[in-house]
Amino acid sequence: MILLGHGSGGRLSHQLIKEHFLPHFVNPALALLEDSAVLDDLAFTTDAYVVTPRFFPGGDLGRLAVSGTVNDLAMVGAEPIGLSAAFIIEEGLSFEELDRLVVSMSLTAKEAGVPIVTGDTKVVPKGACDGVFITTAGVGRIDPGFRPSPVKVRTGDVVIISGTVADHGIAVITRREAIRIEGELSSDVAPLVPLVRALRDAGLEVHAMRDPTRGGVAQSLIEIAAASQSRIVLNEKAIPIKSAVRAACELLGLDPLYVANEGKLLLLLPDARAQAALKVLKSHPLGEAARIIGAVETGQPGLELITTLGGTRRLRMHSGELLPRIC
Amino acid sequence: MILLGHGSGGRLSHQLIKEHFLPHFVNPALALLEDSAVLDDLAFTTDAYVVTPRFFPGGDLGRLAVSGTVNDLAMVGAEPIGLSAAFIIEEGLSFEELDRLVVSMSLTAKEAGVPIVTGDTKVVPKGACDGVFITTAGVGRIDPGFRPSPVKVRTGDVVIISGTVADHGIAVITRREAIRIEGELSSDVAPLVPLVRALRDAGLEVHAMRDPTRGGVAQSLIEIAAASQSRIVLNEKAIPIKSAVRAACELLGLDPLYVANEGKLLLLLPDARAQAALKVLKSHPLGEAARIIGAVETGQPGLELITTLGGTRRLRMHSGELLPRIC
Repeated sequence: MILLGHGSGGRLSHQLIKEHFLPHFVNPALALLEDSAVLDDLAFTTDAYVVTPRFFPGGDLGRLAVSGTVNDLAMVGAEPIGLSAAFIIEEGLSFEELDRLVVSMSLTAKEAGVPIVTGDTKVVPKGACDGVFITTAGVGRIDPGFRPSPVKVRTGDVVIISGTVADHGIAVITRREAIRIEGELSSDVAPLVPLVRALRDAGLEVHAMRDPTRGGVAQSLIEIAAASQSRIVLNEKAIPIKSAVRAACELLGLDPLYVANEGKLLLLLPDARAQAALKVLKSHPLGEAARIIGAVETGQPGLELITTLGGTRRLRMHSGELLPRIC
Repeated sequence: MILLGHGSGGRLSHQLIKEHFLPHFVNPALALLEDSAVLDDLAFTTDAYVVTPRFFPGGDLGRLAVSGTVNDLAMVGAEPIGLSAAFIIEEGLSFEELDRLVVSMSLTAKEAGVPIVTGDTKVVPKGACDGVFITTAGVGRIDPGFRPSPVKVRTGDVVIISGTVADHGIAVITRREAIRIEGELSSDVAPLVPLVRALRDAGLEVHAMRDPTRGGVAQSLIEIAAASQSRIVLNEKAIPIKSAVRAACELLGLDPLYVANEGKLLLLLPDARAQAALKVLKSHPLGEAARIIGAVETGQPGLELITTLGGTRRLRMHSGELLPRIC
């Protein structure tokens, strides 16, 4: 039976994909399980968005549905050329709410410089879905000179994050559960396309790039470590996190490294290119707080954390559902 | 407030798109409102599938989700190169049912010769969706020598349909409502890609091509008549329909011309090419019952029907929801 945890992005999700989808949908593009499938010079990706509440500090379902999909294209180095949007709407949704979501999608698409070129609308009877779900897909063109992929990661690479962690997940869950925390809790949801364009234009040799969404920074790096058979060591002290987000994580018993981000990117590239990359990132509003948070070292493949107390902890794929309907 | 009729494919759907989506998603590819958006040499399309029941005579949600999307690519003349599949699953769905749907998708994709290259899975709590919804998107390559479009339709063109009408809608609704009719009621859901390949390979000059899904043959031809500002006249006597389907339509008070098909195509092309097109269609199992059912004539733009009694009736866009959750 399908459990909420099967949609978590963690161990159960991987099991679902490996046992129930991959054996039937056999093809080389899918087998890589990257953020986007790559078909010759094209990148192609899709995501369904079911976040609740649909409006949260810093964003909404519409902004999320556009950002998430263009970001998946950007992560394989592609320049997005078109988006599709399919709406499943519960009978009785107000036009006022639909219009707010559509306007938000339109503004976010403009921010990313991508047109929404095709779509679909289905309406289901009251009770058959929860308000509205939006599934977007995106197509991008690949620049053969800029094609990050986890398999390119090498010992000596550094790990950079473009800003603070866990903002999106915490903004959604605290709004949903009406938890009040002193300080700013706002989702980071944003299209990373302009930031990735800047990295590409700088001609930087990027080994891997990933937006740490469902499952957070830990999940993304565990997957990169597995794909590249490398040992990634994170330095907890270096990981940027807002104090209000840290406080909320402590209150909720959540590890911020496993909480979703929707406007951050992880970059793995040779140490010698790190300062150049940081300069590019920091010159853009979305990358102002960029930092080096770890490195790829020799040793057993996997993800390790040097804690603030100086100990070392191995980070594993989480098994269940930390935060349902976060994206 | 959103009504079921806004998902019908009829007048309310058009109003929703024109008033709530198009003003915000402004771009030339979307403005054409064809089955697929065309971006240079690429076709791109998406559809959400929410059919209930998920298994019906002749098909299931999985077969529908693949066929519907590859057919939209085929209708603009594109050769599909990849599909995406995003699942929104209700907590508690059985693996047995998920596997049946996935296997059906896989077999249908093979029939169409298209790989499923990327996907997403979201799980929502019990009650937040009805079982499982599947949204597919597809990308195809356009052959510049074969680019049907409603704007190419001219006086003197004939209208061909590849087989009997209304099979899909009637198979779903009679199963859902447990209506028993003497004879075969089976959905026609199928990927039309092989049939369209045969038409393309024959080098036929096809003016317009459309798979008459939601809203049926009438809706598709009303849209083509509007786009080409032409008068399309159908001959009711010539329209192929199974007797069991006709009986079900009479019982349910449905006009079969407005009922969904999922494995049929409408072809508009010059009279002089009609026999060659029929030969190609009839040589394929999906087109065995192909027939000329009408023609484009001079006169006021719109769709007219010469009834079996010899009268003439103007067919208009239906306003409400004939059959909710049929696809």
